[in-house]
Amino acid sequence: MINETYKARLSAKSVIRELSEYATARGQEIGYENVFDYSLGNPSVPTPKEYNDSVIKMYETMDSMSLHGYSPSLGRPDVREDIAAYLAKTYGLPYTAGHIFPTTGAAGALAHALRLVSKPGDEVIGFAPYFPEYGPYVGDCGLNLRIVPAQVEDFQIDMAAFESMMNPNVAAVLINSPNNPSGVVYSEETLKNLADILRKKQDEYGHEIFLISDEPYREIVFDGKECPYPSRYYDNTLSCYSYSKSLSLPGERIGYVAVNPAAKDADLLVPIMAQISRGIGHNCPSSTAQLGVASVCGITSDLSVYETNRNILYAKLTELGFTVVKPGGTFYIFPKALEDDSVAFCKKALEYDLVLVPADNFGCPGYFRMAYCIDTEKVERSLPALERLAADYK
Amino acid sequence: MINETYKARLSAKSVIRELSEYATARGQEIGYENVFDYSLGNPSVPTPKEYNDSVIKMYETMDSMSLHGYSPSLGRPDVREDIAAYLAKTYGLPYTAGHIFPTTGAAGALAHALRLVSKPGDEVIGFAPYFPEYGPYVGDCGLNLRIVPAQVEDFQIDMAAFESMMNPNVAAVLINSPNNPSGVVYSEETLKNLADILRKKQDEYGHEIFLISDEPYREIVFDGKECPYPSRYYDNTLSCYSYSKSLSLPGERIGYVAVNPAAKDADLLVPIMAQISRGIGHNCPSSTAQLGVASVCGITSDLSVYETNRNILYAKLTELGFTVVKPGGTFYIFPKALEDDSVAFCKKALEYDLVLVPADNFGCPGYFRMAYCIDTEKVERSLPALERLAADYK
Repeated sequence: MINETYKARLSAKSVIRELSEYATARGQEIGYENVFDYSLGNPSVPTPKEYNDSVIKMYETMDSMSLHGYSPSLGRPDVREDIAAYLAKTYGLPYTAGHIFPTTGAAGALAHALRLVSKPGDEVIGFAPYFPEYGPYVGDCGLNLRIVPAQVEDFQIDMAAFESMMNPNVAAVLINSPNNPSGVVYSEETLKNLADILRKKQDEYGHEIFLISDEPYREIVFDGKECPYPSRYYDNTLSCYSYSKSLSLPGERIGYVAVNPAAKDADLLVPIMAQISRGIGHNCPSSTAQLGVASVCGITSDLSVYETNRNILYAKLTELGFTVVKPGGTFYIFPKALEDDSVAFCKKALEYDLVLVPADNFGCPGYFRMAYCIDTEKVERSLPALERLAADYK
Repeated sequence: MINETYKARLSAKSVIRELSEYATARGQEIGYENVFDYSLGNPSVPTPKEYNDSVIKMYETMDSMSLHGYSPSLGRPDVREDIAAYLAKTYGLPYTAGHIFPTTGAAGALAHALRLVSKPGDEVIGFAPYFPEYGPYVGDCGLNLRIVPAQVEDFQIDMAAFESMMNPNVAAVLINSPNNPSGVVYSEETLKNLADILRKKQDEYGHEIFLISDEPYREIVFDGKECPYPSRYYDNTLSCYSYSKSLSLPGERIGYVAVNPAAKDADLLVPIMAQISRGIGHNCPSSTAQLGVASVCGITSDLSVYETNRNILYAKLTELGFTVVKPGGTFYIFPKALEDDSVAFCKKALEYDLVLVPADNFGCPGYFRMAYCIDTEKVERSLPALERLAADYK
């Protein structure tokens, strides 16, 4: 019989889907270039030429078995070595190939990491605002996702609230910095305090608590800064990475889990994840994608447009009186709506052809998200619409 | 804490792995060309030039967003249309894009299909001999895999044994034709009888029983025949396909589920599978791979070497007195060992540098599998070794 639990999800209302459908329909009416669609986190800059050239060269020169043959269930050894060497050099942790597990993007990485460090019935702690897909990612492992309320002044972590929610059933803590949807980068202080609490609770409960760090925006950081690397602050960390944003490759589904070499049973964790793969149907990401990303380690798309857009939008939103934390990275900004009901606010915005996403699904009602992975020219053209929207609330 | 269930699997003894390690070590000693390694089902013929050329052209001409951007969660509409049109033309069922769900190979297809038509605790019926990975595929959905014993005379289905194992808890029946490991193609008669029983049991139990048909070897069929298409005989069929064997692309992880258009709730099943994806971390196969296979619909690698190898081995094995069913397809042959203990038999074979796989894991003790996806020249060189092995049992 058809599974009723999954079937029931089809009738769940999706505000984002409704908005996206509206934007498409409106685009057909007035031209999509005139719809200021800030709804989708789809990278707008091209994949670097180096990546495409590298794949073409592989297709032209490699023999069929080497290029298209089965990848070992742990991932291609050459790819794992390249990624480990890059991470070791960049973040100063002694990664080797044995700590790297290639996956189908961050979604695939999280699917393995969550199952690796928990058993059904355990709890996972996350932090508002959060990526709504964490709901099914965690829930479909048979785990309970509990969310620490947002610290809205700066969207760092409310440590007291976090500590009060910790209990012996917590198997993992799930963070995402730079953050979707807030755009905030967790500070060193945040990561240190988080790690202190985790270490204390590990001792108290007598078992490991893993930190699962979802890092697809790691390279999209502004103002010449770098994103503090969570694994440097806490040994039992699984870094879940995707090349979707840094190389603008979301369709290729390629990323990895990097196991901190000092984690409990670090050398076993990748082999165990390969066991998890057997039951959830992964068997490694595409060999082309594995080889492709390994060949351009350290290269990214030209990500500067996101900072330009951030600057324009942050300046305009603050000028218009919005309460908004300045994003340190990503391509999101997360202002407070001008009325309590952010769904109503985003509906109002549609009157000006502004497609904004209310943040109820992100665990932060009253706020909204703008994904500014669009052309700067369009961001600039959208500013009068933002002005008119704000004027309605004067 | 680290999941103990998955961790325990690391210590499971794998005969295939041991054999493979032996073959590698022995190859380093005497040259791999002198090890007659029949252990691995890795396609030996190259991917067709059309596929590689098509991917290169896409990389050279398509814009970055169209090539590497997010695929919709149901799969790329153009790809789904191409596959549906090909299947409709080839098998005469009225498939449209709405019935096609692109997946990461057959493993990904089965991961979705199994979850789609069951709830944890249900039963799935399979048939010996069977692909050992069905164990974790089914078990990790929380389902119980029950195996109908092999009908060793022809490796078709023992219908009486099958019918006696049916009960109201059976959610799905899992078949694999052409079959790994037997090489047998299910006849029209087998599929008709199977469908009759399934329809009768659906009526009796008052709920659907889905047929999940695992078809990666569909195009590798010998003697100018075609593989009867299971979905033509039974409406509630999910055809799980992989391009791994037909295009020699196992590393690219690309396949699909095709929902029979007459299945219960046929138009809902692909959207429900997209919901399942969210929890198991798939989010569509690689966009390059989706576009690549759609661009060569109906084309295959030159698969003729497998038939040549089948002919050589079948002739030699029967000449040597082995009990063996003539394979109608795949690149496997599945003889009875010359002693009851097929593990001992395969160990003996190693003395002649023959790497054979005992079939205990395939649910058929006393038999062994030879994967003849190797060069014909090597098959021929292996025949004296087979002769000497058989002579030991005279």
